[in-house]
Amino acid sequence: MSGTEAPRGPLVLVAGGGDYPLQLARILANRGERPFIAAIDGVADPAAFGDADVQSYRLGQLGRLLEELRRRDIADMVMLGGLPRPSFGALRPEASTLKYLPYFAKAFRGGDDHLLSGVVRFFEQQGFRVHGPAEIAPELTAPQGPLGRRQVSAEQRELLQRGFSLLDALSPFDVGQAAILADHRVVAIEAAEGTDAMIRRVTDLVGRGKLKIGKGDGVLVKTPKVGQDLRLDMPAIGPDTLRNIAEAGLSGIGVRAGRVLVGDRDALGRLADQLGLFVEGFA
Amino acid sequence: MSGTEAPRGPLVLVAGGGDYPLQLARILANRGERPFIAAIDGVADPAAFGDADVQSYRLGQLGRLLEELRRRDIADMVMLGGLPRPSFGALRPEASTLKYLPYFAKAFRGGDDHLLSGVVRFFEQQGFRVHGPAEIAPELTAPQGPLGRRQVSAEQRELLQRGFSLLDALSPFDVGQAAILADHRVVAIEAAEGTDAMIRRVTDLVGRGKLKIGKGDGVLVKTPKVGQDLRLDMPAIGPDTLRNIAEAGLSGIGVRAGRVLVGDRDALGRLADQLGLFVEGFA
Repeated sequence: MSGTEAPRGPLVLVAGGGDYPLQLARILANRGERPFIAAIDGVADPAAFGDADVQSYRLGQLGRLLEELRRRDIADMVMLGGLPRPSFGALRPEASTLKYLPYFAKAFRGGDDHLLSGVVRFFEQQGFRVHGPAEIAPELTAPQGPLGRRQVSAEQRELLQRGFSLLDALSPFDVGQAAILADHRVVAIEAAEGTDAMIRRVTDLVGRGKLKIGKGDGVLVKTPKVGQDLRLDMPAIGPDTLRNIAEAGLSGIGVRAGRVLVGDRDALGRLADQLGLFVEGFA
Repeated sequence: MSGTEAPRGPLVLVAGGGDYPLQLARILANRGERPFIAAIDGVADPAAFGDADVQSYRLGQLGRLLEELRRRDIADMVMLGGLPRPSFGALRPEASTLKYLPYFAKAFRGGDDHLLSGVVRFFEQQGFRVHGPAEIAPELTAPQGPLGRRQVSAEQRELLQRGFSLLDALSPFDVGQAAILADHRVVAIEAAEGTDAMIRRVTDLVGRGKLKIGKGDGVLVKTPKVGQDLRLDMPAIGPDTLRNIAEAGLSGIGVRAGRVLVGDRDALGRLADQLGLFVEGFA
């Protein structure tokens, strides 16, 4: 996946919230790599990385992080993990960070892609090579085909394809990483609320009798936007996603293979089997 | 608007829930017309139509309604008002309705448009001319331009146009009559939950600090789908829509002129002024 890349030197893993940064650190450690880990204060717990080489940084300590990376001669970077959309006022920038603020003030205007591509561009302008987590560790993403034992039916496949087409049509508007289709129609489209909240909405519609989802019906589709930069904010599913869709009465999840994070493939496949769900990656 | 129509004979108004059927009955009465009103049981209160010629029908009494219309020589029909998506099992069809059920069993598979166009086709096959409420009473729809005193700003206009384009892109998927844009991005897209629930979601995101909407920011767009049959289930806004978006902190509503019901234009314009909102119809 990184065939066109220059050989990679020492790496910094900028770690946000959730389990994925820990999994990536573990994969790298198993390969004998020892990245420097910059844990983002408030979302990533540095202690969770065990004896790794880790330090905590607030967003407002960007300047201090850059100085540390330069001191260590680190020019390769991967960013992974949940990051609450930061409010510009809550940054509390240190003196060494102040000079970078005008850059980010501009990036804050616009959709998520706009903000995030601004972050990538910033680090590139500072001389870093920013790698996507899927490039560093493709084993974190959905493979093509089913993760567990369940296979999709013809009806489910038709719903999934309609869902992927819908999300592709939304891409030019910088919105729509997920949708739920059931009962022969589109029943929920994700925007600012996030995937979990969208799933809860469907659970709620079903609970209030506003929507009927029969056995084997109901699918979640999740995919990056067309042209989305996968070096930051890759779409992801995990155990909670599976539990949430099981609670909503859906039958499974379709994702774009290689372009959606699933973390530990085997563990997620086993959970899918336990919950009676399909999870399948599509080319 | 009905220039190509055959001259209209006696009319039946099939009245669902909400205020719009009452307003249409009033407009017709003011013109000296006296339509037969078939009030759908459970959503339309026959008493609300005063001394009009009104009878109540359950959905399962379709056969009885058809017999009554034939007895009265009524061949022109308009349908208006909210109708909960009926569950096929709750129809409790009378004997005279049973023969029509296979037709509707097919129509129940698919998106809303599919179901509703099936209803229109059914009545047409039964020999009725089905008219849209906008054709019978264009004064019930949004005119072009602002309804109240507020005009949209350049920024609001840009958001509205992006919203209309977004909804147009969703039309092929038979979903998406409304969306909310704020903070330079798309923050909510309506699917099965309905417009009011979508607005409440934004109110909730703002309340939980997940979304910031500044003064003058935040717009609701509402429009029929491209190619939508406006003879049934026209999109509508009303006083509650305005109150809800004011509570969400939005600045106003953009609708497609002539293609979205607003009811009493003057009253809605006054309410918009009171709430400090714009409501504008766009060609």
